[in-house]
Amino acid sequence: MTKKTKVVIVGAGFGGIAVAKRLAGSDIEVTLIDRRNYHLFQPMLYQVATADLSPADIAWPIRGLFSGERNIAVVLSEVTATDKAAREVVAGGRRYPYDFLILATGSGNSYFNHPEWEPYAPGLKRIIDATEIRKRILLAFEHAEIASDATEQRRLLNFVMVGGGPTGVEMAGAMAELARVALARDFRHIDPKAARVVLVEAGERLLAGFAPDLSEYARRCLEKLGVEVQLGQPVQAVNEQGVQVGATFIPTATVIWAAGVKADGPGQWLGAETDRGGRVAVGPDLAVPGHPEIFVIGDAAKVIWEGERLVPGLAPAAKQGGRYVAEVIRARLENRAPPPFRYRHVGSLAMIGRNAAVADFGKLKLRGRLAWWFWGLVHIYLLINARAATLVLLEWAWAYLTRKKGARLITGLRPLFVEPAGPKP
Amino acid sequence: MTKKTKVVIVGAGFGGIAVAKRLAGSDIEVTLIDRRNYHLFQPMLYQVATADLSPADIAWPIRGLFSGERNIAVVLSEVTATDKAAREVVAGGRRYPYDFLILATGSGNSYFNHPEWEPYAPGLKRIIDATEIRKRILLAFEHAEIASDATEQRRLLNFVMVGGGPTGVEMAGAMAELARVALARDFRHIDPKAARVVLVEAGERLLAGFAPDLSEYARRCLEKLGVEVQLGQPVQAVNEQGVQVGATFIPTATVIWAAGVKADGPGQWLGAETDRGGRVAVGPDLAVPGHPEIFVIGDAAKVIWEGERLVPGLAPAAKQGGRYVAEVIRARLENRAPPPFRYRHVGSLAMIGRNAAVADFGKLKLRGRLAWWFWGLVHIYLLINARAATLVLLEWAWAYLTRKKGARLITGLRPLFVEPAGPKP
Repeated sequence: MTKKTKVVIVGAGFGGIAVAKRLAGSDIEVTLIDRRNYHLFQPMLYQVATADLSPADIAWPIRGLFSGERNIAVVLSEVTATDKAAREVVAGGRRYPYDFLILATGSGNSYFNHPEWEPYAPGLKRIIDATEIRKRILLAFEHAEIASDATEQRRLLNFVMVGGGPTGVEMAGAMAELARVALARDFRHIDPKAARVVLVEAGERLLAGFAPDLSEYARRCLEKLGVEVQLGQPVQAVNEQGVQVGATFIPTATVIWAAGVKADGPGQWLGAETDRGGRVAVGPDLAVPGHPEIFVIGDAAKVIWEGERLVPGLAPAAKQGGRYVAEVIRARLENRAPPPFRYRHVGSLAMIGRNAAVADFGKLKLRGRLAWWFWGLVHIYLLINARAATLVLLEWAWAYLTRKKGARLITGLRPLFVEPAGPKP
Repeated sequence: MTKKTKVVIVGAGFGGIAVAKRLAGSDIEVTLIDRRNYHLFQPMLYQVATADLSPADIAWPIRGLFSGERNIAVVLSEVTATDKAAREVVAGGRRYPYDFLILATGSGNSYFNHPEWEPYAPGLKRIIDATEIRKRILLAFEHAEIASDATEQRRLLNFVMVGGGPTGVEMAGAMAELARVALARDFRHIDPKAARVVLVEAGERLLAGFAPDLSEYARRCLEKLGVEVQLGQPVQAVNEQGVQVGATFIPTATVIWAAGVKADGPGQWLGAETDRGGRVAVGPDLAVPGHPEIFVIGDAAKVIWEGERLVPGLAPAAKQGGRYVAEVIRARLENRAPPPFRYRHVGSLAMIGRNAAVADFGKLKLRGRLAWWFWGLVHIYLLINARAATLVLLEWAWAYLTRKKGARLITGLRPLFVEPAGPKP
């Protein structure tokens, strides 16, 4: 070959990074495009929202991951289209030619056809989501402290998490601990321990992907922490004043959305059919039907596993897809036939709170302190480098021992909302 | 006394915190008002701008500093006026009565009557300033990497620091190291080492507050790091395209302002006379003439020292003022006459770069590696708690050993600027 093979990867999440790592040091010219300059360790993003960690603890510059790999170019730009005929990706008004294209763009939040709920119920996808949620939570307490109206004060101290999956459970647990422990002595006019943390789930149990006894354990643990768990209750409306859950209206200023995800981008760019979650159906080699040179991996791909189950939108699944596609490309270049993709399910983990977590590995199920340690070890192990791991360990240790939160910053605050002139305090 | 004495402190910088700490545990009802929820360790803020540290490493929730002190209430609100007759402070539409008022509001950037320069030349005062500057610096490299026009590419790789005081020197040194070392291998189309870092100072030497030989040493060190130092050159204009310095126009997209500060707030609220820097002249007890119950401390106060010199706008000066005012209040309540305020100048420190700093303690002058160690030790010692100190030490050690920067995040990025459709890459 005189002309080098060009691979374009869109998205530097777990899937995209895995492809690039496997192609590093090869003869292939790799271009990795992302609209952000960092790779985010999303499973711990909720800890930024609850002021446990700083953004830089769990996000790393993509360039830094490939400094030494001369065959990998990182581009900060936003893809707007793919030109299948010309085999080019369009991003920021420029065109990037490819021989193989990997779309690993992940997913965003789904508001079940109610996009108007989004401003009142941010989800946890990007760093700015997490810092926005952190700001809303901390400001709710601040505003409650100086509120002159008792009804408004109670409303400000209600916090509603929507969605009983791992993210919702983790947020609710951390939120309860924030209110009941970390902030307990910091206010003079309100009692943060009186804050109401409500976790709303439309289904009949929390953590639907886990064994039922672990779901039940999670519910009991959260209730012990003071979380109100409402099951079988779909959210009917979200607005400035609060959330309509079944027949009840919960007045609140802080709603956090963890109820559903939806991929966009690949389906639209390719003109491909998608399922309700926006996922593009791919073949056994993760390529798009009719386009063996285009692959979709991770949250944006619809891959069937064990006959009828969908491969879940988890980091390990995206990584496996990424590593597999890198092998397919190498095989194709060597005129070998690649074996079909086989997803290997490792297990599911969810943190609940201090000394409480659940882990479901099929036959092996863990709960309580053991699962909590396991959760911590796995997450530290998966962090990208020793620096991040040490920093996070240190912040966790400090938080565990002092029961304080280290990253309680409200940034980007001006202008502050101004209360109508009330009675003198 | 049946009625408790009320002290209102406006501003939770070094001065305000010092007053509150000295009044903690007393019978006095203290209200500490700040428009932000954190106390910022400003001397290290430039390290957030250059991606060395995270905001939470050098900023702590004010509430957390006084959790256990029941006589101190923290209020997140923005003061808009003081009512001297009623002895009340107005903030967020509410009124806070006081027996003693301490205004410790610090200073903002001064653009020498050119407020129109501000959007193009942010200063380093708040956390959002530092993250904004970090974003601009990192985006300049990102945009240069994909720029199709060579002139524009060169413009993007020019970085101009205005002001040769400690902040300007520290920014210029850290900026040069960022470009020449940390980013050196991370791009494929540009060479970050070719970035031009220019430090512009209107006066005849850098670090005017230091001994002349230390100024000269700083200049030589910076030039060794690749910084262009331009002395005796006032800035004539700053706009979207660059900076006019004397007769030369430097095209750039990144200007950082460290040329002057100005206090506002107290002078206006009190209707008091101020100097050109917005400082309120106070008496020997730091009280406002005619109002023994109102004190101004820190950057916002004009205090004369050693006959004619102004007490400098440094953290130690603000702290000394704060501690002193707390003693004055205690003395007044006990009908004692307080001694006049005496400023004790500790010395001046400025970091230049790896193994290079300057320290001027009058008789004792340090430079080079020894001053560098000293700078680090002093700053670690001054950090608010063991957690912060450990985190910062760890980040510094990692950066020193690997020569990488740990906090290279561009957040709040959408929408990305879109380049006009150019030729294919």
